[in-house]
Amino acid sequence: MSNDTLLIPGPIVISEKVQQALGSPSCSPTVPEFVNLFQGVLKNCRKLFRAHETQGQPIVLVGSGTLGWDVAAANLVDPEDEVLVLGTGYFSDSFQDCLELYGAKVDKLEAPLGDQVPFQEVEQQLKKKQYKAITITQVDTSTGVLSNVQRIAELVHELSPSTFIIVDGVCSIGCEEFEFDKWGIDFCLSASQKAIGAAPGLSISMISQRALEHALDPSRKPRSYYASLKKWIPVMQAYEDQKPKYFATLSVQMVKSLDVALKELLADGLELRWEKHRKTSEWLKKKLTDDLGFKLVTKYPSEAAAHGLTVFYVKDPPKLISYLKQHGTVITGGIHKQIASQCVRIGHMGVSVCSEQLDHIPACYKLIAESNIH
Amino acid sequence: MSNDTLLIPGPIVISEKVQQALGSPSCSPTVPEFVNLFQGVLKNCRKLFRAHETQGQPIVLVGSGTLGWDVAAANLVDPEDEVLVLGTGYFSDSFQDCLELYGAKVDKLEAPLGDQVPFQEVEQQLKKKQYKAITITQVDTSTGVLSNVQRIAELVHELSPSTFIIVDGVCSIGCEEFEFDKWGIDFCLSASQKAIGAAPGLSISMISQRALEHALDPSRKPRSYYASLKKWIPVMQAYEDQKPKYFATLSVQMVKSLDVALKELLADGLELRWEKHRKTSEWLKKKLTDDLGFKLVTKYPSEAAAHGLTVFYVKDPPKLISYLKQHGTVITGGIHKQIASQCVRIGHMGVSVCSEQLDHIPACYKLIAESNIH
Repeated sequence: MSNDTLLIPGPIVISEKVQQALGSPSCSPTVPEFVNLFQGVLKNCRKLFRAHETQGQPIVLVGSGTLGWDVAAANLVDPEDEVLVLGTGYFSDSFQDCLELYGAKVDKLEAPLGDQVPFQEVEQQLKKKQYKAITITQVDTSTGVLSNVQRIAELVHELSPSTFIIVDGVCSIGCEEFEFDKWGIDFCLSASQKAIGAAPGLSISMISQRALEHALDPSRKPRSYYASLKKWIPVMQAYEDQKPKYFATLSVQMVKSLDVALKELLADGLELRWEKHRKTSEWLKKKLTDDLGFKLVTKYPSEAAAHGLTVFYVKDPPKLISYLKQHGTVITGGIHKQIASQCVRIGHMGVSVCSEQLDHIPACYKLIAESNIH
Repeated sequence: MSNDTLLIPGPIVISEKVQQALGSPSCSPTVPEFVNLFQGVLKNCRKLFRAHETQGQPIVLVGSGTLGWDVAAANLVDPEDEVLVLGTGYFSDSFQDCLELYGAKVDKLEAPLGDQVPFQEVEQQLKKKQYKAITITQVDTSTGVLSNVQRIAELVHELSPSTFIIVDGVCSIGCEEFEFDKWGIDFCLSASQKAIGAAPGLSISMISQRALEHALDPSRKPRSYYASLKKWIPVMQAYEDQKPKYFATLSVQMVKSLDVALKELLADGLELRWEKHRKTSEWLKKKLTDDLGFKLVTKYPSEAAAHGLTVFYVKDPPKLISYLKQHGTVITGGIHKQIASQCVRIGHMGVSVCSEQLDHIPACYKLIAESNIH
């Protein structure tokens, strides 16, 4: 397979050490070496999410990022429960589908394309109805919209403190500011292959203590087997307590590579990572708009622009994608139904942004400029 | 992590090439190189299951083997549907749990510990009641029992032809004789980390044409999002037709390593693989019983003994496991509630059995003999 520079909004380029850990022999998930390693991974997940050291529980499952929606929908919400979805693109819509499949009654506040949902609308809606949960897609990869999770969480705490705050952090955890504990989040789902910097294949999430108690309530009927927290929480608690426990076979190599990715990320420091992503994103967006005259799908400049990817309109997306591919850089097209054929998406996350040795983003920009494709 | 020889009933030792493919860079799941590769994987899955070349559909998902139960239970069976479970150990019991969680009404025929369910009982039960589906665990890894899928399938075809035949092939596909098409199976689930010879992390299954039509029937309500065949089948069909399609991010490295594992397996030929597992299993079981006087959990000699693992009673399992671990070989303890503390389990699958260069099984036997532990 080719050695192209992978600049899509996930999977992203992984570091050599993460890759080496992935290409390791299989081992038993119950041997002490692996038990110790997985304990460390879970403890580092708490740091990644900025979660409490002992309350709540990080959860690492074999699965795509999508599986995190099932975990939220099948464990936190009961049929007929009212849920408020903040719609900022394709991924918010799909989360709604998942919630409805498990029986939730969803109200959606749809943002203008490329922008956040206005706070006033969220405020009014929270005053109108009592919701079991609210979902916020921190970064919707279809539009490049960054939601202001902190401010929405403040609103919810003020107006409807019993409502579970559920955040889709698939394209934000590791590259956008996020504070599980300080902001009072109840559930945040993410995945291994984006700003966390590992290969695709792990669903990684964090649940608060009160949401955990709700999920484990014996009077509530679980509605998924593989995504059941009643099955998985004892396994995660055991491993975090340095003891093996079985429900389903863990992907040992994926966990080993996640271990390396988390250590790399935390060694830099999360604040520095966030800052590097912010700077790189600002640089690229300014160059694309000011110097090349592209228009972003995301409202820009504004606080609604995500820092791990850039989505912009191009007259002939396949032509630009193909030009870059010929020059060894992979970007991708649109996924949002309204604009799928009118835009391209560039991911700028992880080592491509944070490593001093790599110039992936400037090199990608240079190719776009040279291409003369608009 | 240590370089112990891994002889548990999965994950198993993977070949160097499978390991290398796993430790490869991330790539976009939509680039032609990956699309071509995944097409080949799906076509090879048909060969692996001995399935029809165009009818039905192979399905490769990111997940543990367990996820295959959700796929079966959430897509093929509706709430209140009657299902007959043949109980041959821990894994049959867990499949029952999964079916019941999704609303099925389960009757279980429980086999005597270490043996198959008597055919007469299956026959009587099929005459008594009309079942939507029957589940057979081809090899139950907790007891080492091999079920006679072919003969049970014949019974079902004769007595209750509309009943879906669902086979748990997690610990059998790749090492036990299996004929999806010839035997008329409707759904067989397996996983990457056992006799298929890849790393843990992929759920691999095959569905028949009639079961597929049932799963996709628009009048039926899907009951899992992540395990929904309505979501996944169009993705699998597209890739098999050499076109990319998105529902959730595929684990590209896992798929690449599965590609290598399947090619290795099919290059040998399935019949030769089955034969090698049979011979190795016979040799080990005979030596353990005749020469060392151990008693197997599985009725032996009989056709009920699986060929990919051996489960036998030991007075002090931790002592034997620990002795072998000190000498660089990892075996494991029991998992079946009645005998968990009384037995050990040795896996003999994949390269450990089939490679001419490796003497894993004789070496493991030698260590057991030398240990003088009973």
